[in-house]
Amino acid sequence: MTRRKANADERRRLLCDTAIQLLALEGAKGLSHPKVDQRAGLPAGSTSFYFRTRASLLLATTRRVCELDLADLSAVLEPRGDDEGGISPLAALIMLSAQEPRLSRTKARFELILQANRDPDLATVFDENIALFAQVQRDIVIRSQPGRDLDPATVDEQVSATLNFVSGLFMRLVAGQRAFDDGPHLDRLLAGIINGIAAVHQDTADEP
Amino acid sequence: MTRRKANADERRRLLCDTAIQLLALEGAKGLSHPKVDQRAGLPAGSTSFYFRTRASLLLATTRRVCELDLADLSAVLEPRGDDEGGISPLAALIMLSAQEPRLSRTKARFELILQANRDPDLATVFDENIALFAQVQRDIVIRSQPGRDLDPATVDEQVSATLNFVSGLFMRLVAGQRAFDDGPHLDRLLAGIINGIAAVHQDTADEP
Repeated sequence: MTRRKANADERRRLLCDTAIQLLALEGAKGLSHPKVDQRAGLPAGSTSFYFRTRASLLLATTRRVCELDLADLSAVLEPRGDDEGGISPLAALIMLSAQEPRLSRTKARFELILQANRDPDLATVFDENIALFAQVQRDIVIRSQPGRDLDPATVDEQVSATLNFVSGLFMRLVAGQRAFDDGPHLDRLLAGIINGIAAVHQDTADEP
Repeated sequence: MTRRKANADERRRLLCDTAIQLLALEGAKGLSHPKVDQRAGLPAGSTSFYFRTRASLLLATTRRVCELDLADLSAVLEPRGDDEGGISPLAALIMLSAQEPRLSRTKARFELILQANRDPDLATVFDENIALFAQVQRDIVIRSQPGRDLDPATVDEQVSATLNFVSGLFMRLVAGQRAFDDGPHLDRLLAGIINGIAAVHQDTADEP
């Protein structure tokens, strides 16, 4: 990669990171090319040079959010030392997301998800990201139940229920509410949901 | 109430209902006084006459969303006939919210919740609404576990977990995803979460 190309990529990342901050602070209505220029400390017209339309700025920002989300996911999936409390990767990810600067990204993500409702290109980026998260969460859910006889439909529902729970939890964090005590507390809640869904499926399977 | 007053109230409701549709279709960025006038089929300036500022229009629209939410909640809490499938009030409410015209209100609600993040007046309206829903959900959760020895902390977590789950489910509905099969399926998921959280609390209480 040439120096020029590397600088351009770096500039695009800076602009998208700035757009994420603006979305968190002012919502979709507060996002504009001039505001991104100003907040990033760049000359007027910089954002328009790299992202000609609002749609292209939103798309690049959505890709950046997903890229950062996946980097966090990879980080929590790394083997960790015992001194980090031994909480599950999902609980670790929620703990991370509850604090700045990631809380701003959580806010921006909701703004972009609502935009995606009206923009199929954004929806495609999110769909791919969610599918990847669901796959990883599936592995986590299966590994959390050693020795239990699991059918795929049960695991599907465990994944779906925990991801719904986490999305609702994030919405509470965005609204400034206290949603959990600590990592072990989160893991107890997640285990409760996973075990409870398994038990309901078992009961249904046992019916004559 | 005078006829003039009644007409003014009716006009305000029409404008707020139109704002809800606009928020669902175009997001917070797409909401403006002239657009509400136009969509409501009223003369230019009507919305500004009743709601001088954007903040007052957003506040009145948030109150209208909460008023309609509570009307739906009252409706599902009414005693129902056996022919309606005997699903829980919460499942009935989710089923309602998954279909138009209520799905538009669900979309508008998320737009307004994100706005509330930057507007303490909106946040106050939502906080009161959520507290009322949590109280009703608390009654539903307790009634769904006859004979179980429940401490208040367990019920708090059951309420919190089910409301998080429902919020995440709504976010999926807004994103156009299929989130559940039918009412009985929803009730199985909710029962799984409620029972699972109870079991986790029981295990913790049993520890030496």
